[in-house]
Amino acid sequence: MNAADADANVDTGAEPDAPTETLTTSVVGASGFAGGELLRLLFGHPGFDVTQATSREYAGRSVGMVHPNLRGTELRFTEPTDLEGVDVLFAATPHGISMEHVDSFREAADTVVDLSADFRLPNAAAYDEWYDGHSRPELLDEAVYALPELSRAGLPGAELIAAGGCNATVTTLGLLPLVESGIVGDSGENDRSTDSERIVADVKVGSSEGGAGGSKASSHAERSGVVRPYAPTSHRHEAEIEAQLGLRLSFTVHAVDMIRGAAATCHVFPTEAVSKGDLWKAFRGAYEDEPFVRLVAGGGGVYRYPEPKAVAGTNVAEVGFELDPRNERVVVFAAIDNVMKGAAGQAVHAANIALGFDETSGLKFRGLHPVGAP
Amino acid sequence: MNAADADANVDTGAEPDAPTETLTTSVVGASGFAGGELLRLLFGHPGFDVTQATSREYAGRSVGMVHPNLRGTELRFTEPTDLEGVDVLFAATPHGISMEHVDSFREAADTVVDLSADFRLPNAAAYDEWYDGHSRPELLDEAVYALPELSRAGLPGAELIAAGGCNATVTTLGLLPLVESGIVGDSGENDRSTDSERIVADVKVGSSEGGAGGSKASSHAERSGVVRPYAPTSHRHEAEIEAQLGLRLSFTVHAVDMIRGAAATCHVFPTEAVSKGDLWKAFRGAYEDEPFVRLVAGGGGVYRYPEPKAVAGTNVAEVGFELDPRNERVVVFAAIDNVMKGAAGQAVHAANIALGFDETSGLKFRGLHPVGAP
Amino acid sequence: MNAADADANVDTGAEPDAPTETLTTSVVGASGFAGGELLRLLFGHPGFDVTQATSREYAGRSVGMVHPNLRGTELRFTEPTDLEGVDVLFAATPHGISMEHVDSFREAADTVVDLSADFRLPNAAAYDEWYDGHSRPELLDEAVYALPELSRAGLPGAELIAAGGCNATVTTLGLLPLVESGIVGDSGENDRSTDSERIVADVKVGSSEGGAGGSKASSHAERSGVVRPYAPTSHRHEAEIEAQLGLRLSFTVHAVDMIRGAAATCHVFPTEAVSKGDLWKAFRGAYEDEPFVRLVAGGGGVYRYPEPKAVAGTNVAEVGFELDPRNERVVVFAAIDNVMKGAAGQAVHAANIALGFDETSGLKFRGLHPVGAP
Amino acid sequence: MNAADADANVDTGAEPDAPTETLTTSVVGASGFAGGELLRLLFGHPGFDVTQATSREYAGRSVGMVHPNLRGTELRFTEPTDLEGVDVLFAATPHGISMEHVDSFREAADTVVDLSADFRLPNAAAYDEWYDGHSRPELLDEAVYALPELSRAGLPGAELIAAGGCNATVTTLGLLPLVESGIVGDSGENDRSTDSERIVADVKVGSSEGGAGGSKASSHAERSGVVRPYAPTSHRHEAEIEAQLGLRLSFTVHAVDMIRGAAATCHVFPTEAVSKGDLWKAFRGAYEDEPFVRLVAGGGGVYRYPEPKAVAGTNVAEVGFELDPRNERVVVFAAIDNVMKGAAGQAVHAANIALGFDETSGLKFRGLHPVGAP
Repeated sequence: MNAADADANVDTGAEPDAPTETLTTSVVGASGFAGGELLRLLFGHPGFDVTQATSREYAGRSVGMVHPNLRGTELRFTEPTDLEGVDVLFAATPHGISMEHVDSFREAADTVVDLSADFRLPNAAAYDEWYDGHSRPELLDEAVYALPELSRAGLPGAELIAAGGCNATVTTLGLLPLVESGIVGDSGENDRSTDSERIVADVKVGSSEGGAGGSKASSHAERSGVVRPYAPTSHRHEAEIEAQLGLRLSFTVHAVDMIRGAAATCHVFPTEAVSKGDLWKAFRGAYEDEPFVRLVAGGGGVYRYPEPKAVAGTNVAEVGFELDPRNERVVVFAAIDNVMKGAAGQAVHAANIALGFDETSGLKFRGLHPVGAP
Repeated sequence: MNAADADANVDTGAEPDAPTETLTTSVVGASGFAGGELLRLLFGHPGFDVTQATSREYAGRSVGMVHPNLRGTELRFTEPTDLEGVDVLFAATPHGISMEHVDSFREAADTVVDLSADFRLPNAAAYDEWYDGHSRPELLDEAVYALPELSRAGLPGAELIAAGGCNATVTTLGLLPLVESGIVGDSGENDRSTDSERIVADVKVGSSEGGAGGSKASSHAERSGVVRPYAPTSHRHEAEIEAQLGLRLSFTVHAVDMIRGAAATCHVFPTEAVSKGDLWKAFRGAYEDEPFVRLVAGGGGVYRYPEPKAVAGTNVAEVGFELDPRNERVVVFAAIDNVMKGAAGQAVHAANIALGFDETSGLKFRGLHPVGAP
Repeated sequence: MNAADADANVDTGAEPDAPTETLTTSVVGASGFAGGELLRLLFGHPGFDVTQATSREYAGRSVGMVHPNLRGTELRFTEPTDLEGVDVLFAATPHGISMEHVDSFREAADTVVDLSADFRLPNAAAYDEWYDGHSRPELLDEAVYALPELSRAGLPGAELIAAGGCNATVTTLGLLPLVESGIVGDSGENDRSTDSERIVADVKVGSSEGGAGGSKASSHAERSGVVRPYAPTSHRHEAEIEAQLGLRLSFTVHAVDMIRGAAATCHVFPTEAVSKGDLWKAFRGAYEDEPFVRLVAGGGGVYRYPEPKAVAGTNVAEVGFELDPRNERVVVFAAIDNVMKGAAGQAVHAANIALGFDETSGLKFRGLHPVGAP
Repeated sequence: MNAADADANVDTGAEPDAPTETLTTSVVGASGFAGGELLRLLFGHPGFDVTQATSREYAGRSVGMVHPNLRGTELRFTEPTDLEGVDVLFAATPHGISMEHVDSFREAADTVVDLSADFRLPNAAAYDEWYDGHSRPELLDEAVYALPELSRAGLPGAELIAAGGCNATVTTLGLLPLVESGIVGDSGENDRSTDSERIVADVKVGSSEGGAGGSKASSHAERSGVVRPYAPTSHRHEAEIEAQLGLRLSFTVHAVDMIRGAAATCHVFPTEAVSKGDLWKAFRGAYEDEPFVRLVAGGGGVYRYPEPKAVAGTNVAEVGFELDPRNERVVVFAAIDNVMKGAAGQAVHAANIALGFDETSGLKFRGLHPVGAP
C-alpha cells in the first residue's frame, strides 16, 4: 500500500480485503479474447469464484491452452449446452447468440452481463436499422447499458447488463463532457443542419477487435503496419453512440498497428465559442469522481494526450482535448484498451456496481511502462 | 518488359534507355532520411550522375555507413561548405538552412530543388504567420511548388523548386479532386461560415517524419505501438494546404506505428448533395493522366482503400473515397510514402519535369507485397 | 478469488491480506524503466509504503509525468542527494553508481536491493575482467544474488541484495535444471575440451533493455523490425552466468522487435545421451515448487514453447525444452519480461524473501492475452 | 547512372539496355507471396514478357487485387489447368504440387524454375527421410540447385532448376566460406564426434514464410511481437543445408516480429584456432566476385552486422562474423529477404544465369533506408 497515493480517484494496485462471501460466476464464450480477459479479471477478483468457462471449440481443454496467461489454473472449458447455475453469468459470444440463448442464461444466473451487441441499442427499430432483426426486442428496454460513466444510476440491482462496444465506448467517453455541459448537441430536434451536429469521430483500433479467429486480412503479414480504413462509414457503433449521447456524428474507423487499444479523435465545431477554461470545466465536471477516467491534456513529457499505450491492460480511459481557435474547433482525444474498458473491464465494473462490490474491485492493474503495441 | 502492362499511366519497373548525356547532381544534407532517399533515387536514375553528398556530421565517411542500402557505392560525404559546381542541387536540410544558403546553392547549380519548408509558402506573410520570419522573401514568388499534380505547368525550366511537406502532400492529393470539381471550396470569399469549409483532415504518420535524430519520444520503447496526437492543432502544413487549395481546413496529425507512410482521412461535408458518380468523375478527372496517382475505392481483396503499406518505397499516391449519405459526408482517403512522394520522390519527379526527362525516370519501383510497417 | 485455482505454485491474481505494519521504502533512480517498474510494484504491494523516488533529471516533477501508468499518484521525484531514512532502499541506477554511493544507501536503509551490475559478480577478479575495476570489492562477498531460484537460501535477512542481469537471468533459468541434474557441467576442472562445455546461448531481447534514453540506434525508425546482433560476443552477462552456474558458455545477444522481453535459446550437447523423461525430471525437479517458473514444452495451441509475450508484465519465467536426437542435442528455451523477472520483479521477489513477506506479494499480475510486442 | 558507383560487384539500380528479344514466361501459383514477388520482378525485367499467372482461388481476378503493388497491370489470374506455352515457367506452388505436375510444366516450357521443396534434395533417400516420399525421384539428379553462390557452374542451360529454401539459403550462405576454406567440415567421414560438427544455426524469420493463408497462430494479435520457437528441431531445411555443405548442423528456427527476412546466427567451434584474418580471407575469397553478397562485419554506424532490414526487398545477402577467442568460437551472421534471396529473387537470379541474361537483370533494387519490419 502506498501512503503517497492520496488521490482518491485512482486505482492503488492493492486489492481490498476479500468480502466474507463470494459469488459464483461463469463465462460463456470463454475462448475468445474478451472471454479470456473476463476469466483473468474474475480469477483476480476477491468477490467472484469462477466455476465454469464454456467453449464449443475447446471443450475439455484447459483454459491455459488458449490463454497462456491463465496457465496453471485448473479450469477447463465445458460445452456451452450444459450451463451450471451461478450467481452471475458473463456472456462473451458473437453477436446474435445472446438474444437466442438469453432465457437459458437467465435461468442459469440471477445476473447476466452480456458483452455482445445484442442488448446495447434502446429499441427494436434502432436494432433493425443497423443489424438484422432482433428476436427478443422486449428485453432491449430492460437491459442496462454497462458504461458506468453514463449509466451508473441504473446499474445497482440490474439483472441484464449490456456492455458497450469498444469504439462506441471510447468515442462516447470523449464526447460526453461536451454533451453534458451543453457545448454540443440538442439544438431542439436533433437536426443535422446545425453546426453542432457536424461532429467527426475518427477512430483507430487494434487487431484484437477482430477477435481470435484468423483471416487473410488479419494475418500478421497483411495486418502489420497498416493504417487501413476498415469501416469508412456506417460502422454499427455509430448507432450506439447516437443513442447514448442523443446526437449525430460522422464515424470512421481505421485499423492501425497495435493489438489492444482504441483511440478516438473527435473534431467538434461548437456553435458558440468556447474557451480552454470552459473545456476544463466540462471535462472535470464530468469525470472528477470517476475512478477510471483520467484527464490528460497537454503538459510535459512524452505522453501529453490520451494514448492507448498508456492504458493498455487497464480499465482506465484517458480523455483530453485541445482548442483550435483558428478553425473554431475543439479536438477531443480519448483512448482505452478495447479488451478492458471496451469489453471485459467495463463488464466487471458494471457488475461490481450492480452487485454492491467496490467499483474498482478486480480492476486495479495500473498498466505498464514502457509497453509495446498495447 | 511486360506486354501485359498496357496501362500507360503505370510504372513498369523497367527503366527507359539512358539519355545520351547525364546531368551532374549533388545532395546537400545527405545523411538524413530524405537525403539518403535522394541518393538512392539518383543512383538509379539514368539521367543523373551524383558527384557530391554533403554532411557535416559524417564528412569523410562513406554514404553506406549511414544508409546501409547504399553500401557498395564509393561516394563519401563531404563538408557542406565546399559545394562543387553541378547541374542540379538537391537540398535536404532542416528548415531555415536553405534560405540562408540559397545563394551559394544557386551559384553551385543551375537548378535547385529544396526539400525544406523554406520556399513552400506563397509569400512572406504566410511564412511569418506559421514560421519565424523569412530572410529571403523575394524568392517565395519565384519558387515553384514541386507537386506535379498541382503545379506541373510551372515546372519546365524552373530553377528553384520547393518540394511540398509530406502531410500537406497527402492531404492535398486527397482533396484536390473535390476542389477542382467544385464539390468543395470557393463559396465566393472563402468564408468559414459555409459548410463546405468544415473540412477535417485527420492524418496518421510514421516515425521517419521525425528524421534521423534520436529523442526520448522517438525511442523505440516509447514510440512503438502508439496512436499519439503529436500535432493536435496548428500543424504548419495546414498553411501549405490552404495556400495550395484555397480553402480552410482543420488539421490534426497523429503518430502511429509505422516508419514510412502518411495517411490522410478527410471528412468533407459538401453543401450540395453529391453522388458516387460525381465523386468518381471528380477523381478520375483529376488523376486519369497522372502516372503516380492510383484510385482505390472499394473492390475486393484485403486492400480496398488507400493504405501506406501499399505504396511504401514508391512515388505513388493512393487516393480513394466513400460516400456517407446518412451524414451527407464524403470521406476521402489518401496514402503516400512520406520519404518518397512526400519528399525525395516528389523532388525527383519535379526535377524530371523541370529538366525534360521522362516523368517517371528513376521512380519506377513498384513497392513490395507483403511488406511490414512501411 | 477462484476455487478453480487450486494449483499452489501459481499466482492467483488476488492479493493477500495486508500485513498489520508496512515498511517504508524508496527507489533511487526512479525515472528509468526499472525504477518506474519498481514504483508500480511497490505501490501495489501490501507490505510497502513508498516514501521517496529520486531522479536528478526530473526532481520536482510528478512520477506520472515520466511513467504514464503512475499518473494519479501524488509522489514527486526528489534529488538523489537527499536520501530519506527508510526500511528498504531499491537502487535502479546505471552501473558504477551504486558502488560509489553504497555507504549512503546503507546509511539510509537497513536493506539495500541493487539492480545494477555492481554487486552481481562473486569477486573483484571477475568484475575486473568484465568491467572497469570495482571500488568496493569487499562487498561483493556480502551481497546476495537476488534470483531466488538460485539463491533462495541466502536471502532471508540479507542486507545487500544484487538483482541479476536480465539476459543472465533468462539464460540461467533455462540451464539451471541441466546443471542441477548433472546433465551438463562440472567435468572436474571446468575445462572447455569436454563436449558438455560447448553450450551456446542465443538470446533475443527487447528495446527496454537499452533504457529510457534516446540514441540513433534505438530510434523507432532504426530499431523497428530488427534482428540485430548487438552483442555478438563478450556480453558481460556471460560472466554472471558462468559465475552462477559454474560452467562456460558461448553467449550472443540479438535485439529484436519487442519492447519488453528476453528469450534465451540454449543449445546443449550432453556428453551422455538423455531422454525426454530425463529432461522432464530435471526441469520438474528444479522448479516444481517455484511460484514464478512455468514449464512449457510442446502441447497444443498457439503457445507451445516459452515466449516473452506470454509472460509480459509478469514476474513469471517460462522454461521448456526439446530433444534433438539426430544431433544429440538438447534445446532449452526460456523467456522472461526483462523489466520484471529480469529486474524489478526479481528485486521485489528477493526483498519479499529477505523481509519475510509472502514470496508472491505484489507480483501477482498474470499478464495479458492477447498482447502485442511485450 | 552513377559515376560514383564504381564498385563492380554492386547493383546500380539502373537497368541495362533491353535485349533485342524477350522470352515469354508464366508464373504458376501466382497469388502466393513468392508468386507475387516473381510477377513483380518479371514485370521489371527487360528480358521477360509475362504472359500468364495462374491461381485456382483467384482465376479471373486481376493480379493487382491480391498484390496491391501490381495494381495497374492488366494481367489476370487464370486456372492452372490451362498452361500456355512459354519459354520459361516459374512454379511457386506448395510442396508436393510440382512433382505431380512437372511433366505438364516441362511440356509448357523449355525451362522450369521450381520454388517448392520438391527438387531441392539430392536423392530420394534424403527426400524420404524429411518429407513424405517422392513421386519423381529420377528428376532429383537432373534438377540444379538454384543458389548461384553454390551452384553457378551448373546453371547455364539448366532446364529444371530448384530454388533453395529460405532458411537453408541464409544459413548456407553464412557457413559456405568456412566450408570452402576448410575451417569447418570434412573430418574424413563426416562424423559427428569431431568438434567441427557441433555447428549450431539459430535462425529468426518473418511471417511471410508462413505464406498468404490465415491461421490463428499467424493472426496479427497472436503473431505480433513474438520470439516463438516454431521449429525447435528437425526443420526440413536442415537436410538441405547438410546436403549442400556436406556437414551436420543443429538447426532451430524462431518466428520474430518482421514480415520479410531471415537471419541466421551460426555458432561454430573450429577444431583449429582461427584468426580474424583467416575469417576475412575465407569470406572475401568466397564472395568477392558475387554481385549479391555483401560482407558486413563490424565498423561504425547503426548497422554493424548483417540485418534483414538492410536487405529487405532486395536480392542481397549480408554475411559477417565475429571471433570469440574466449570460447574458441566463430559466430557467423547472415541475413536475407526470404521472399527475395530466399525465393523469388534467387529463382530469377538462377534463371538469368541459365538463360544467358546479365546476372543482376531485374534484381537491381537497393532496398530502403529507413525501413520498418522488413
